[in-house]
Amino acid sequence: MKSIDYSLYLVLDRSLSRGRSHGDIVAAAVAGGVSCVQLREKQCSTREFLEQARTLISVLRPRGIPLIINDRLDIALAVGADGVHLGQEDLPIDMARRLAGEQMIIGISAETVEHAVAAERAGADYIGISPVFATATKQDHSAPLGLAGIGVIRARTTIPLVGIGGINAANAAAILAAGADGVAVVSAIVAADDPAAAARALRRSCRPAESCR
Amino acid sequence: MKSIDYSLYLVLDRSLSRGRSHGDIVAAAVAGGVSCVQLREKQCSTREFLEQARTLISVLRPRGIPLIINDRLDIALAVGADGVHLGQEDLPIDMARRLAGEQMIIGISAETVEHAVAAERAGADYIGISPVFATATKQDHSAPLGLAGIGVIRARTTIPLVGIGGINAANAAAILAAGADGVAVVSAIVAADDPAAAARALRRSCRPAESCR
Repeated sequence: MKSIDYSLYLVLDRSLSRGRSHGDIVAAAVAGGVSCVQLREKQCSTREFLEQARTLISVLRPRGIPLIINDRLDIALAVGADGVHLGQEDLPIDMARRLAGEQMIIGISAETVEHAVAAERAGADYIGISPVFATATKQDHSAPLGLAGIGVIRARTTIPLVGIGGINAANAAAILAAGADGVAVVSAIVAADDPAAAARALRRSCRPAESCR
Repeated sequence: MKSIDYSLYLVLDRSLSRGRSHGDIVAAAVAGGVSCVQLREKQCSTREFLEQARTLISVLRPRGIPLIINDRLDIALAVGADGVHLGQEDLPIDMARRLAGEQMIIGISAETVEHAVAAERAGADYIGISPVFATATKQDHSAPLGLAGIGVIRARTTIPLVGIGGINAANAAAILAAGADGVAVVSAIVAADDPAAAARALRRSCRPAESCR
């Protein structure tokens, strides 16, 4: 399961979901073409995070869509998630790999070219380039790397790259053309009136789903 | 290391530390007689929690004092802590044990007699009886179990019991007399003008440090 389809990568965020459950958003988004889902929870209890993860696995696994857990390696291990996504303020990748084993996907958020190069060297399975464009979803983000930043990171790394930050159906194709293997979105799907239609619009902008590596 | 001394159990809480570092508080508290330390962090990043845990291990391990991590099993495993303490809203003990292995201490917070009995049955190494008395440290606590509650739990369980909540040098001896193996404190040491003196006062109220089980 280490080779997954990063082409349209949904990051869930309850604060943007307008009261709809993760399960409802995800079912619609997957019907619309999402290829990978990340669960990010910063406010709730561990038990609630765990239950959300279990619910999502029950929706995603029958459809062959991987679930990646943000930050909490203990929860990823407890539920048997496909991967864990680590920011620069989360566990260092060497510690995470030692606990997670070789089979778990580990993604790293890179806010600079140096982060991206270091992540690949340390054994990351993919890199989240964050942010590509300025976004209101994260208030504390670093300076946007832009399309040029994707190009530079692509030239210096070989693992899959996923752009995140300010991505929508209008600019997704440009992210891929710049060298990314996938686009990650939060609000473009999670906050949409119709998450399935929003996912379909993004999917039309991207190349067809395929195994990136 | 599964047999540890729970007699005077310090729970760290930065929000009560009046700007003093965990390292400074712990060095003073251990000099005053603390036998066990728990690190609880609810606000900071995973990386910062990890660094705090590493710093504490460097202070505690040479002194033979165990470190227990609250909630975050991934951090406990990453730093090689002696144990993890789980509340009823944290990972379920069966999942935690599967990930932690048999050598790691797992403590469970019990807010009722039923919680305590279930925790022992599920393989907990000790039980935190929470709260014994009403406390301002936790705003959302359950109804206090009181000295009578300790007695009931003592009669129905065999593993070490640690009381927490509203404990100070004036009532610590009564907690032990009711059947607990140790007293856990937060503000009585962390918020004290002189944490070493506060620990010494608590230690004088308790029986001498000994290996409880």
